[in-house]
Amino acid sequence: MDVLLFGKDADYYNAHLAPEFPQMRFHVARDAASVPEAAKGAEVLASMAPAVTGGLVRALPKLRWVQALTTGVDNLLVMPELAPEVAITRVRGIHGPQMSEMAMLDMMLLARNFPQVLRNQAERRWERWPQKLLQGRTVVILGVGSISEELAPRCKAFGMRVVGITGRAEVPPHFDAVMPRERLLEAVAEADFLVLLIPYTPETHHIVDARVMAAMKPQSWIVNIARGAVLEEAALDQALRAGTIAGAALDVFAVEPLPAESPLWDAPNLIITPHIGGMSDTYAEQALPTLRANLAAFLTGGVDGLRERVERGMGVAA
Amino acid sequence: MDVLLFGKDADYYNAHLAPEFPQMRFHVARDAASVPEAAKGAEVLASMAPAVTGGLVRALPKLRWVQALTTGVDNLLVMPELAPEVAITRVRGIHGPQMSEMAMLDMMLLARNFPQVLRNQAERRWERWPQKLLQGRTVVILGVGSISEELAPRCKAFGMRVVGITGRAEVPPHFDAVMPRERLLEAVAEADFLVLLIPYTPETHHIVDARVMAAMKPQSWIVNIARGAVLEEAALDQALRAGTIAGAALDVFAVEPLPAESPLWDAPNLIITPHIGGMSDTYAEQALPTLRANLAAFLTGGVDGLRERVERGMGVAA
Repeated sequence: MDVLLFGKDADYYNAHLAPEFPQMRFHVARDAASVPEAAKGAEVLASMAPAVTGGLVRALPKLRWVQALTTGVDNLLVMPELAPEVAITRVRGIHGPQMSEMAMLDMMLLARNFPQVLRNQAERRWERWPQKLLQGRTVVILGVGSISEELAPRCKAFGMRVVGITGRAEVPPHFDAVMPRERLLEAVAEADFLVLLIPYTPETHHIVDARVMAAMKPQSWIVNIARGAVLEEAALDQALRAGTIAGAALDVFAVEPLPAESPLWDAPNLIITPHIGGMSDTYAEQALPTLRANLAAFLTGGVDGLRERVERGMGVAA
Repeated sequence: MDVLLFGKDADYYNAHLAPEFPQMRFHVARDAASVPEAAKGAEVLASMAPAVTGGLVRALPKLRWVQALTTGVDNLLVMPELAPEVAITRVRGIHGPQMSEMAMLDMMLLARNFPQVLRNQAERRWERWPQKLLQGRTVVILGVGSISEELAPRCKAFGMRVVGITGRAEVPPHFDAVMPRERLLEAVAEADFLVLLIPYTPETHHIVDARVMAAMKPQSWIVNIARGAVLEEAALDQALRAGTIAGAALDVFAVEPLPAESPLWDAPNLIITPHIGGMSDTYAEQALPTLRANLAAFLTGGVDGLRERVERGMGVAA
């Protein structure tokens, strides 16, 4: 059985898995140009989802299973080259630490207007202003899943009030309250920070729109580390220029990389980061257990034994 | 009895205290130029310590007590105009939230090389690199007092290992270990982050010197939010340029504001902030209880009843 390990961490996975699975032939490729001829018979492809292209899939005619090493698999679900009988699995629950740290960092940067501090350093300017803290402020987290459950205790350690927007009735640990999505406008009116951690689906397309921003306090901030299209970018651009809200941090965008001509690049009080929220220097280490467990399951039961399998035709994101 | 409330929050303190202490005459002044003639008989001065000048003290010949609204009172202790019989008190234990948030922010900025992210935004450049997390890393906190005790639980919520350098034998809550100052070189060798929170005294002058930096890992960072002179700035400048450590964030300096000609302004991998660690937008609210309690004590027992009184001739800092 042939397995193609694809991407910059391919060697890492190979070093760990090859000794454990002598029944499998592992092939490694850092990019499309370096896929070895022998890998063309691979039944299994393991790769970060965004790196999987139609061309790569066409080169693997025996493919039966794609193990996405990401949580988001949006591109795979709409890829015509990927036949419906090819199983897709993803990794879940490993992004909590990095996403939580990113959200905490973004909130502190926004509250303190920290980009101005760094601009001042570049100009050797010593300028002080009262520093707004996270302590005592309210964060509304849109979407309560495995990542939010790791973010909430960090927020509580900082003395924040934590409100989750979710269909779940019970209040999860480290949350002060939950509210259903139907009460979003009411919830955001109390928010100092609105953090987006909701999967992208047809129902959540532009769920944060001009109406939501208008319902927020002028001294509040938005952090989007979910998917670009859960937020209406044009509405945010307008809200920032009008002072409807105090600022925002975007790590994700409707089109990535964010095009150089996007007006967002110089919207006031907007921090732009290049989709780094899910990244960590120990990512391969975090993803390895899922890949290992699924390879073992695949050996035993084929695609039927796979965990974290994604229904085809269903929109799912981080 | 006349009390001079001095500084930008003077009106806030006056609004709260005047109704509570009808026996006292409160005078307010935002700056030296606006001190009213009637305030010249003040026996009490309440002000942030750095704002108290020899000139201001000379203008208050009846002064018996200075309530510093800061923890650091360095300048008062060496001020010839302040007669030895004038009592000095300070506020303590209110800086935990802001100082802790500053330390967490600095650590995340350093680990991610975040200033480069913001420089990239200014140039509309989309560039990603593996993001280093706080999770799993070791922070060594030099100095275990009320601020460190608030920083430690935040570090633990982020999954860090927390080591305190202190003379205390017992391990305080949220710390994984403590070590005495004599073992500093050994402790910093294990540190990913070395956070300075030690008071400035003759004994701690340049306690973090070239030897300490040489003992650290090349992939480690220093955060100084204590006092400038606990760290040897010239040695840090050299260590950063030589790559002895990976980076640093300084909020405090031997001379403040940091002179425009200082080489530190463009040392590599150095984040410079203008002594904002102790600042918060709710600072006056945080300091009010100490001022209120001491005014009540002063009414009852004069300077002998004051709390958080500083021995004259003793060097003490945040």
